[in-house]
Amino acid sequence: MDEQGLPAAWQGEQVLLVDQDAARLRSPALLLYPEHVRHNLKELRTLLGGSFERLRPHIKTCKTPRILQILLEAGLRRFKCATVREARVLLATAKAQGIEDIDLLIAYPHVQPALHELGKLADTHPQARLAVLSDDPGHAAQVDLRLAVYLDLDLGMGRTGIAVAQRERIRAIARAAGERFAGLHAYEGHVIDPVPEQRLAKARPGYEQLLALHQELLGVGLSVPEIVTSGTPAFLAALSFAPFRELDGCVHRVSPGTVVFHDLRSQEQVPELRLKPAALVFSRVISRPGAMRVTLDAGSKSLAVDAGHPCCAALGAPELAPEIPSEEHLPARILSGAIPDLGDSFYLVPRHVCPTVNLAENAVIVEAGRVREIVPVAARAHELSWPQQ
Amino acid sequence: MDEQGLPAAWQGEQVLLVDQDAARLRSPALLLYPEHVRHNLKELRTLLGGSFERLRPHIKTCKTPRILQILLEAGLRRFKCATVREARVLLATAKAQGIEDIDLLIAYPHVQPALHELGKLADTHPQARLAVLSDDPGHAAQVDLRLAVYLDLDLGMGRTGIAVAQRERIRAIARAAGERFAGLHAYEGHVIDPVPEQRLAKARPGYEQLLALHQELLGVGLSVPEIVTSGTPAFLAALSFAPFRELDGCVHRVSPGTVVFHDLRSQEQVPELRLKPAALVFSRVISRPGAMRVTLDAGSKSLAVDAGHPCCAALGAPELAPEIPSEEHLPARILSGAIPDLGDSFYLVPRHVCPTVNLAENAVIVEAGRVREIVPVAARAHELSWPQQ
Repeated sequence: MDEQGLPAAWQGEQVLLVDQDAARLRSPALLLYPEHVRHNLKELRTLLGGSFERLRPHIKTCKTPRILQILLEAGLRRFKCATVREARVLLATAKAQGIEDIDLLIAYPHVQPALHELGKLADTHPQARLAVLSDDPGHAAQVDLRLAVYLDLDLGMGRTGIAVAQRERIRAIARAAGERFAGLHAYEGHVIDPVPEQRLAKARPGYEQLLALHQELLGVGLSVPEIVTSGTPAFLAALSFAPFRELDGCVHRVSPGTVVFHDLRSQEQVPELRLKPAALVFSRVISRPGAMRVTLDAGSKSLAVDAGHPCCAALGAPELAPEIPSEEHLPARILSGAIPDLGDSFYLVPRHVCPTVNLAENAVIVEAGRVREIVPVAARAHELSWPQQ
Repeated sequence: MDEQGLPAAWQGEQVLLVDQDAARLRSPALLLYPEHVRHNLKELRTLLGGSFERLRPHIKTCKTPRILQILLEAGLRRFKCATVREARVLLATAKAQGIEDIDLLIAYPHVQPALHELGKLADTHPQARLAVLSDDPGHAAQVDLRLAVYLDLDLGMGRTGIAVAQRERIRAIARAAGERFAGLHAYEGHVIDPVPEQRLAKARPGYEQLLALHQELLGVGLSVPEIVTSGTPAFLAALSFAPFRELDGCVHRVSPGTVVFHDLRSQEQVPELRLKPAALVFSRVISRPGAMRVTLDAGSKSLAVDAGHPCCAALGAPELAPEIPSEEHLPARILSGAIPDLGDSFYLVPRHVCPTVNLAENAVIVEAGRVREIVPVAARAHELSWPQQ
């Protein structure tokens, strides 16, 4: 670790563009590194015991067809997402590669009119399986017949889902879902601890509740084909919880998303991950407003600030200490060495990569230090149509 | 003021969509209210003494051609922006209305290759006047000959610009700019105080520095046609500073942007403004995860969180107390009354409207409670082209 808290290995990464490309590229720009994505997928497969069978990656992080292609090429067919647009972009990207058998959990309790849109989407992709979450019997009854339903459970985060203790309500939702009932979903987003043993200790009570519920549902004749848990902070805890590997007629899967691109916060929350940062923000010095100070052109409209300070770290430049950005400015102190010149470029690892990617309309695919292509971040933002009646 | 800190007048605003439109509209959605924009412009004109002569509104807030049209229809021709895309979209929008004589200060010390793009943009709009900032003699010399140059001064914010005390450097920049030198720019973004007298007291030392510098530059034979200061927090202080109205051969202008749409933070910072919120986020209840709790579908990917907590307030629903959002979820407590149903909609005033607008790809134009059209937020994000050489 250096003074920014970055793994030493990152500082040696070959992320720099060759000079002639760096000089021509506009800034700020989101840079994506397919080689790093492939490395991260390989690392993930190792953590999963050599198979993607228990992985349902959340695509809210990458949002980019060019990157989704890499996930599909690696053999992934099961995914998780939140928005209708993410679902639509994934299905279209897969179809363009001749892949129809996508299994997609839209891990969000969508209401109307989004539920209706998802029903239409299922219609246009008859070989795909689409599912949504439900935590309400009336809602579950209303879900389009073309969609599967996962029961959303709250293990203590308090965001969506119902408490595992509410057995009657749980059975009512399962009954309302009927044949569409496809499993349990529980996002333990409150389980965050950099120490693996403590992380599992925090997660274990929730996991044991899930096991007990699963047994009970089996007892009343309900089949539970899948249990989905865990984003990036907790997925290693869930994988290390042995009973999830021996479920009766049921597969447990984890659903991290950030792992595809990785970021500063995940590195802090799960320091044992050996992933590479695969999405950086390319930024230039636009001002030197004082001794040992510079201002870069990546502000909060290109680097997300929702996960605290600092919003980024400069790869290979630990002497740059970012301060709080404004919309189009990132002030920074220079801790040592020469003050960079106007126009000098930096490669910033975001603290939180998911909303950072969402800020970009297009991204730069970088391979071997060259700009290979500019690709759309097609699943960013939200759909907003208003068909004439 | 109610318990959310909203002006009482806002609660009575007619922002609700008629039922059949509210039922059909996807969420989350950015709603724009042209009538409120027109009201805000009228109010601004009154604050400016009945004329837009001293206004150069920053278009980083609205970013939407449909709204820029309203500013142009109100007679505005002078603008300020930050990004190349904002400049391009404004010029194209004006041209489509037959307006060529735009005077645009790109209030940002752009470096290459953006400077070159701005030069090309000036070429395609020969009747417009484009200007950039500079705070460095070498930079000023490099600015394309088709662009004017405003000298960027730092009155204490420490973000860009040079201190007024650096007289030699200031003269060097003015010399390097030569015939392109068009005035002084000073953004006193650190001057924030809800009490008008205290606000002016904080701003006054900087304003007096500007006056002294202006006199000195006149003394060495430099003409200073314009001094541009002030965003939304301080523009009323600058307008109340009498010497700015009596400058020798020079017009002082203010450059607020948020005033076009208004937001929670501006209402707190400048409580004497009587503006209406003209950009809201339409959001639905997607879960009721506990007693007196709901979760809405507007998270940090549709409502900016850079300006602190709470990120929004629900218009006409003071009983809804928003908590910290995650990417696609806004948890909230219900302080009193009935718990809303799944699917119930809320109209959220953002704390910080500028980056909230930037999150949306499209916006809904609302007139008389109806969805009139869906329009692109065309100047959002950043340009990223890679022409084949």
